[in-house]
Amino acid sequence: MTRYDLALIGFGGVNRALAELIAERGDELAAELGFALRVVAITDLRAGSLVRGDGVDLAPLLAVAPRELDFSRMEGGSAEPRNEQVIRHVPADVVVEATFTNPDDGEPAVSHVRWALEAGKHVCTTNKGPVALHGRALRELARRNGVRFECEGSVLSGTPVLRTARRMFGGLRVSAVEGVMNGTSNYILGRLESGLGFADAVAEAQALGYAEADPTADVEGHDVQLKVMILANEVLGAELRRSDVPCVGISGITASQVREAAARGLRWKLVGSAARRPDGTVEARVAPVALPGGHPLAGVSGPVNAVAFHTDLLGTVTVSGPGAGRVETAYALLSDLISIHQAAGERVREEAYVG
Amino acid sequence: MTRYDLALIGFGGVNRALAELIAERGDELAAELGFALRVVAITDLRAGSLVRGDGVDLAPLLAVAPRELDFSRMEGGSAEPRNEQVIRHVPADVVVEATFTNPDDGEPAVSHVRWALEAGKHVCTTNKGPVALHGRALRELARRNGVRFECEGSVLSGTPVLRTARRMFGGLRVSAVEGVMNGTSNYILGRLESGLGFADAVAEAQALGYAEADPTADVEGHDVQLKVMILANEVLGAELRRSDVPCVGISGITASQVREAAARGLRWKLVGSAARRPDGTVEARVAPVALPGGHPLAGVSGPVNAVAFHTDLLGTVTVSGPGAGRVETAYALLSDLISIHQAAGERVREEAYVG
Repeated sequence: MTRYDLALIGFGGVNRALAELIAERGDELAAELGFALRVVAITDLRAGSLVRGDGVDLAPLLAVAPRELDFSRMEGGSAEPRNEQVIRHVPADVVVEATFTNPDDGEPAVSHVRWALEAGKHVCTTNKGPVALHGRALRELARRNGVRFECEGSVLSGTPVLRTARRMFGGLRVSAVEGVMNGTSNYILGRLESGLGFADAVAEAQALGYAEADPTADVEGHDVQLKVMILANEVLGAELRRSDVPCVGISGITASQVREAAARGLRWKLVGSAARRPDGTVEARVAPVALPGGHPLAGVSGPVNAVAFHTDLLGTVTVSGPGAGRVETAYALLSDLISIHQAAGERVREEAYVG
Repeated sequence: MTRYDLALIGFGGVNRALAELIAERGDELAAELGFALRVVAITDLRAGSLVRGDGVDLAPLLAVAPRELDFSRMEGGSAEPRNEQVIRHVPADVVVEATFTNPDDGEPAVSHVRWALEAGKHVCTTNKGPVALHGRALRELARRNGVRFECEGSVLSGTPVLRTARRMFGGLRVSAVEGVMNGTSNYILGRLESGLGFADAVAEAQALGYAEADPTADVEGHDVQLKVMILANEVLGAELRRSDVPCVGISGITASQVREAAARGLRWKLVGSAARRPDGTVEARVAPVALPGGHPLAGVSGPVNAVAFHTDLLGTVTVSGPGAGRVETAYALLSDLISIHQAAGERVREEAYVG
């Protein structure tokens, strides 16, 4: 059976959840999917790096509490993350990038992806930075090196959004995409509808773990801005930079505004949208919008996120599902690995045609 | 370039819309999709049959009003539908079945599909009857004959529901499926919320062309029952018969009931659902349900339909889009043809492996 050796870059919640999935369900997945997965390297800013050409024994490693994990104490381990060396030189088939998103220049994740592709390794990532800021260049680099660059988890965790656009819409013309893509903002707006003030809603979201200590990226729309860039670039073929996407968050929205709108059947949502102009170029924005009750995104609430595709022959098709979550995002990586496996079959097929 | 020769069985709204798509956009689709489409036969209960091995010239035929179409006046035409002869003996690659749905035994569509598969022809269909009543047997017949049986349009027109379940959920366990899958019932329930009485809402739906003169199949849930059987059988691997699926429609729902529920934040919907029991078997039903506002199907209104998949790793993923429409359903057939083309590539690939 085909086996893919993985190098996990970043060992926070998402890659840890992927490792758990492999440890707990690997045999079953292999039987269903037709390929096996093995982890041969892990790097992490805090825990260091671990390289085991014969496969990392995941169970004991996952039994250690994340904060206590120290690869330097293990065989094949080191206290340094050694990302470049591991990505370039460890003989892995796929580099799984799940470090933090840097919205400014995407680093260090962009370098991680580039090193991997240059070394002829497939990449799957849940990191918005490389996809939003350098998606086209990285895809082109992947193509030149005969490998795949997969990134389903960069938008709506494992909910199939990018892959729906790529695989389900053959023959359709997609004219616009819009989404409710930030669970924290969505939760806060819902609490404003219920009568809470803005500051109280934010504090509640923080207490529940939905919002970070500094909620700026969520509340001011910066997280959605990156996702809109990804949708515009991947689905509508644009090449937008951050400065091309005006971004207004929800911090200017008052509770009374939200309640008055609700009384008239309108629901305020933080909407990221991208649409093709008549001249073929693409315009995109992030802004709070009071949506009428019948709008496909009006009923999307709390941690559920959704993306609506506007098409010529089918009208509007909407996909909704979890917007975040460690297991949900790890599933995005698994779906990327399935795509890599399928594409390997396609390559064999193309070679057969050429031959 | 690969070309698929099509035999269109039934020339009502859907296959006519497919023919329009081929006539108006065929070259463009071929450039995008990598295959060309040509119609070599059409049969219709009213218009008769038309066989043109060198390809039917679609434009003049589509210029004739549907009611005035008479194949017997055309070269290669006959006043008789001659379905069996055309399906079995005309050298088409794909038989496109879009006749009426017979919920009792699926005929004559089941025979159409069987004849085609036996003759080694791919089938794509929008007809619920064959899929709901004989899906497994027909798929097995297709497999034995080395051809495909595709049926995306049997649920929610071209909205990718069956194909999402089949292609996007690798590695997931789907425990239940539920949907709002009948636009007429949905429209009527919406009008009850707005204050109309049941009889008036039905009359309005009929006046607008949403409901048929005899609205029984829509209002009593029989249409949804077939779709639930399709979801249960195709997505959950069940083998349910109609008698296994209890079916209650919306005719017992009163306007006051709907308005009282709405005042409490509940939305009545006609829900078709199928769920796996702990013992592995599948139970399914059709019934009106008062859904809480946060339910993924609560906001689905009017002609929009939706199907929610409940999974282990991803939680609930919902796909919504048009539930009907001639162009929307014709797109389902195009998506089936894309699948047939992709599967042809897969076969080449498998042969390459064997070689």
